[in-house]
Amino acid sequence: MNFVAKALNLSISAAERLEERNILRKAIIKHPFFPDVIEAFRLDKKFGFYEDGTVVVKATDGVRVFRGFPKIRRALVLNPTLKKHFGDREIALEEKMNGYNVRVVKIGENLYGITRRGLICPYTTEKARESIESDFFEDYPDYMLCCEAVGLASPYVPNEVYGIEGLDFFLFDIRNSRTNESLSVREKEEIAESYGFRMARVYLTTHPDDFNGIKEVIDELNSNRREGVVFKDIEMKVDPLKYTTSSANTSDLHYAFRYFGEYARDFMLARIVREAFQSFEFHESCEEFNERCLRLGKAILEPMISSIRECSEGKTIYDESVLVFSSHEVLELFKQHLRLLGVDFKVEILDENGEIRVKFKRVMRSTNDRIRGILNGSTWR
Amino acid sequence: MNFVAKALNLSISAAERLEERNILRKAIIKHPFFPDVIEAFRLDKKFGFYEDGTVVVKATDGVRVFRGFPKIRRALVLNPTLKKHFGDREIALEEKMNGYNVRVVKIGENLYGITRRGLICPYTTEKARESIESDFFEDYPDYMLCCEAVGLASPYVPNEVYGIEGLDFFLFDIRNSRTNESLSVREKEEIAESYGFRMARVYLTTHPDDFNGIKEVIDELNSNRREGVVFKDIEMKVDPLKYTTSSANTSDLHYAFRYFGEYARDFMLARIVREAFQSFEFHESCEEFNERCLRLGKAILEPMISSIRECSEGKTIYDESVLVFSSHEVLELFKQHLRLLGVDFKVEILDENGEIRVKFKRVMRSTNDRIRGILNGSTWR
Repeated sequence: MNFVAKALNLSISAAERLEERNILRKAIIKHPFFPDVIEAFRLDKKFGFYEDGTVVVKATDGVRVFRGFPKIRRALVLNPTLKKHFGDREIALEEKMNGYNVRVVKIGENLYGITRRGLICPYTTEKARESIESDFFEDYPDYMLCCEAVGLASPYVPNEVYGIEGLDFFLFDIRNSRTNESLSVREKEEIAESYGFRMARVYLTTHPDDFNGIKEVIDELNSNRREGVVFKDIEMKVDPLKYTTSSANTSDLHYAFRYFGEYARDFMLARIVREAFQSFEFHESCEEFNERCLRLGKAILEPMISSIRECSEGKTIYDESVLVFSSHEVLELFKQHLRLLGVDFKVEILDENGEIRVKFKRVMRSTNDRIRGILNGSTWR
Repeated sequence: MNFVAKALNLSISAAERLEERNILRKAIIKHPFFPDVIEAFRLDKKFGFYEDGTVVVKATDGVRVFRGFPKIRRALVLNPTLKKHFGDREIALEEKMNGYNVRVVKIGENLYGITRRGLICPYTTEKARESIESDFFEDYPDYMLCCEAVGLASPYVPNEVYGIEGLDFFLFDIRNSRTNESLSVREKEEIAESYGFRMARVYLTTHPDDFNGIKEVIDELNSNRREGVVFKDIEMKVDPLKYTTSSANTSDLHYAFRYFGEYARDFMLARIVREAFQSFEFHESCEEFNERCLRLGKAILEPMISSIRECSEGKTIYDESVLVFSSHEVLELFKQHLRLLGVDFKVEILDENGEIRVKFKRVMRSTNDRIRGILNGSTWR
């Protein structure tokens, strides 16, 4: 615990208290796949000015701090929120992609993938090592690549809209891992170009009062079933803001209601509130409004009813994805990692030739139990 | 506290602990309008076998206990729930009306209206005294009339579907106030007839496996925008079960989303789950299903957007109803009662000739504040 206390400027007893309260937790499983890490801890809650997801690593070559990715606040209406937040600054409309947040970092001799909550994930690490060159880190040793991990072969947020079979990393921020300061949008673009990183696409740079230009981008993203935009001060001196499309709101609801025992309660209201404010701000026609209502109603009822139907046919409801591992070693390590996370899952090997393709099934116990209970005639409070 | 302890068979210190924990609370405001009550306490949570809403009254003529109205469990699918719950018993399908639950009781020389949570409500008491004859209580001194208070002039659940301008009481159970045992459906009907009480209508008596007959009643209630049914063992030996129509589910959602800051989170999921299981069980056509989805989407978005629009026009969102009082004395007492309940409200006198008609406006602070914040450009977590 001493190295954590020192790195975060805490007394040892304060760090110990954080550990007792389960705020400071193990961030990694010791394993030869992680040869550079001796120990690592993560903050599971914001503490002082350290974001949750902040990781402190005792590595073979010293102690490192990787700051948690900051929460991005959300605009529910474009006007006057953008103006109020960014003033007259130039802003970039960067695509908000729908995957999971990964900080790709170099520790010792190897790359590591840190997920949002500060866990070093074996699967993400393997994929990062396969697809990202480490030469960037020779030139920028104090920085981390903040990426969205996107594609079908995702254990956390599998998504087919990008047409990516595997898992690709899309860079959106380059941040100093110790201070969390971000390079400007232009600096990031230059670096991405010279080191060959894929980037989340910038659709437009404009000013906060360009409502029509901004709405056009959102409409385009919406028709392509994309998630939304992150509005960024191109200097990155002001915090970014996010905004989601109706398509993303409904697709989130679809997911939440398929597994309504697990997710509906927490997911639901926020998405619905977004739909209402967007509909209000966009001055929809009666027809567009009816379409939105039908889309919303379907996003809620269709997945629930199909879960009910599957249970009634004796099936079990899983959240499934297909993952690809290079070795059994990493597959086993990933299973350990999920157990550490408390995930209830099954893995079926689909085929092995060189690489191992597995079907990864997350058991949705609460949804299954509730549906079965009701279908068997249980009454409800 | 001594009389409460004695009446509920508790030690005095146990009763005092309940009071400290705010589980045992004041049930009445001392006032000449309540001449027969010296003191009264209510249970704000279930305790032992005493339901929440149980009231203990020290009256001028002795101590009385009025048991809380029991929670009625809900069927989400008719089959096999009814069969499992009622077996082969004969069941009555009684209309579940949409108002608020009142126990009309006689204490000393006067009638009193006790609301669900165990408060003696001045407004409800006045209306009960106006519309219910007390001769029943001469013959059945140990019983209470469990009624739904229904109509437009309702401070809690104003409702226009019944075409009732004022507030009427519909009897659904006659229960022993001390034991909470209920008379059978037939006994209740006979009593209602001889003493002239309005009753919640029984649409059908049948057996639990009469799916078609039962569904017909539900369809009829649904087309008339009624709330649903309470299934009752006609002997009242088995607890009743309730079941709501799609119309009720959507109208609840409409209400909850108009005041989404106050109600949406708690109301929402349960209603949606009911819709999903009903749609599944009723084997809807594609067209019926689309209609249900549109109805659901509209029940959610329309009221929210109209609240947003009203706020954007500088209006304040209130939940309004028109109430009628016989005297300023009771009006003032009712205002005190609402303050005791922590309700934030305004009252405007509309006219007075003989009776006093007032507009009663409940302030929905959370909804107003959230909408205004967002429209002024606040960002969101």
